[in-house]
Amino acid sequence: MRRALQLAAEAIGLSDPNPRVGCVLVGDGWVAEGHTQAAGQAHAEVMALRMARERGHALAGATAYVTLEPCAHHGRTPPCCDALIEAGLRRVVVASGDPHPQVAGEGLRRLRAAGIEVQVGLLGDDSRELNIGFLSRIERGRPFVRLKVAGSIDGRSALDNGESRWITGPEARADGHQWRKRAGAVLSGIGTVLADDPRLDVRDVPTVRQPLRVIADARLQTPPDARLLDPPGEVLIVAASAEGPAAQALRARGADVRAFANAQGRIDLPALILALGDRGINELHVEAGPRLNAALLEADLVDELLIYQAPLLIGPGRALAALPALAQLADARRFHFIEALCVGADLRLRARPVPRSETVR
Amino acid sequence: MRRALQLAAEAIGLSDPNPRVGCVLVGDGWVAEGHTQAAGQAHAEVMALRMARERGHALAGATAYVTLEPCAHHGRTPPCCDALIEAGLRRVVVASGDPHPQVAGEGLRRLRAAGIEVQVGLLGDDSRELNIGFLSRIERGRPFVRLKVAGSIDGRSALDNGESRWITGPEARADGHQWRKRAGAVLSGIGTVLADDPRLDVRDVPTVRQPLRVIADARLQTPPDARLLDPPGEVLIVAASAEGPAAQALRARGADVRAFANAQGRIDLPALILALGDRGINELHVEAGPRLNAALLEADLVDELLIYQAPLLIGPGRALAALPALAQLADARRFHFIEALCVGADLRLRARPVPRSETVR
Repeated sequence: MRRALQLAAEAIGLSDPNPRVGCVLVGDGWVAEGHTQAAGQAHAEVMALRMARERGHALAGATAYVTLEPCAHHGRTPPCCDALIEAGLRRVVVASGDPHPQVAGEGLRRLRAAGIEVQVGLLGDDSRELNIGFLSRIERGRPFVRLKVAGSIDGRSALDNGESRWITGPEARADGHQWRKRAGAVLSGIGTVLADDPRLDVRDVPTVRQPLRVIADARLQTPPDARLLDPPGEVLIVAASAEGPAAQALRARGADVRAFANAQGRIDLPALILALGDRGINELHVEAGPRLNAALLEADLVDELLIYQAPLLIGPGRALAALPALAQLADARRFHFIEALCVGADLRLRARPVPRSETVR
Repeated sequence: MRRALQLAAEAIGLSDPNPRVGCVLVGDGWVAEGHTQAAGQAHAEVMALRMARERGHALAGATAYVTLEPCAHHGRTPPCCDALIEAGLRRVVVASGDPHPQVAGEGLRRLRAAGIEVQVGLLGDDSRELNIGFLSRIERGRPFVRLKVAGSIDGRSALDNGESRWITGPEARADGHQWRKRAGAVLSGIGTVLADDPRLDVRDVPTVRQPLRVIADARLQTPPDARLLDPPGEVLIVAASAEGPAAQALRARGADVRAFANAQGRIDLPALILALGDRGINELHVEAGPRLNAALLEADLVDELLIYQAPLLIGPGRALAALPALAQLADARRFHFIEALCVGADLRLRARPVPRSETVR
């Protein structure tokens, strides 16, 4: 199963919106393996069966290790559970179930009904972690939202004069591109576009596709010559209104411009996040300024903080998130650290929110 | 030598101002060991020799593993190198040399002159790290200064209204007492005394002595009923002037009150640090507010940051250090991380300054 999980990880940046799945077939003196390909192409099980057949292995009686419950429905490809049954396997070991409404135990049921021995749960946490975005979209209808910030030990992302290049080192920036690559979409705000003119694409690591670039730009101030409109891949600009000459100019540059306004005339962030889920975005990577960061945090839309911390003290400077002042510490937004590791000279911290009902210490 | 280093670590909170030294004697089928006792009492080598003799072991031909070069001078105890020579050892393995002007290679020379095989350098870095304060005092004439701060992910140590209890959890607070225990003195400022009325003693971990408590209090505002005057151990209050009724009242409460003023009428921090070195303080543990923290940082007096980071976002709040605004990022005070680990729900980070000549990235 460890090998199957390694294979599944190779589907990062490839299989979206499908989950990252790996499969290892073990027969009498042979092994075959595969992982999910791009959407519409073969799933992990089919890849592994294909490799076994190409090499002339006898499939009957073999065991399959699959990181996610084999699919039971005709999507763009036929059901994997049927392919495993037809192959005459004796045993299927599954890391975690697939909550997709058209699978949700049906894959396991069909395998068992065919007389195959089925075992579920081996390294299930690792499989779920790899597919945290897919599971979020299927179970909650919205992407897993990862908010990336980079700052100093004293929590400043820039000087008050705006200078922020570069607080963290090149290793941390390359690492950040790994996380962009994982994501179906990268979200930023108009403040960042106007200040830094970022491309927001995946450059520092190889990738076969670019994530959707999404800009929260209530008043459509994105300049038509903004660099983020240049790279291959799609751009979605969300505004309070999607009409008028600014929208036309951005559409002429290839951007999709859509309205997501709330009653206050601001971007309706919860609606935007749900719409990104509908569009098949599993993981949403946020690289934005303090205002958009704070708006997402205040709306409880952030599922993970990805923090690059540079070993320096800045003193007065820009906050990671422009949160309002608290009346008391008990109201602070609490997280739990899930990781702390060195990336070059910097630290990478990851933290996930503690549900508000559990925040009493 | 690993065992000798473990023994040396048992001298933390005991041997100051003497170094933390461990000794393991290995003879024909026997082992004896010891570590530095309280100042004026036996050193590690003598403790190990004593154990060997008490158990009736034949010392001639044995090997000694010592974490620091055996002393060569009559201090409050006779020279350890002579004791090792008299015991008839065949070989002495030393982790690191002792820069003390009355040792500084003389201990090794005497051992070699007596025909003992001497090897130096095994796990020398570990030994030097354990005695970083002793080495600082001997080599630089001043203590190793460790600045402890506790704050949120976004680098705030308190709300703007001052509330700071408790940002970090109980494990981090107990861990902080371990660092207090290591130190010969704990330094705080009058702002912290007036705001929090801290005791500044070692409570959460067992210790046989209390560090000197030092308060930077330029205008002698420490209330005579301040709690830090209560615990056993010495208190030093440093002010711009040590005369007058406030000084008398504090002396009546047992405090030592001394003047350390610079030309601006503020506390002369470099002079204070040097005086603490003269007084035999190896490690100075700073637990102060943003103003004193910033003054120490700006005077380049901080040798290590000890940062407890709680997994929460505070938004507007008090800085870890009240540093002035920078004109450019290149002027930021740079460190390198030497450690990142979990302490309860919090992170403990340690970082040391990058010499200013090396701060170009």
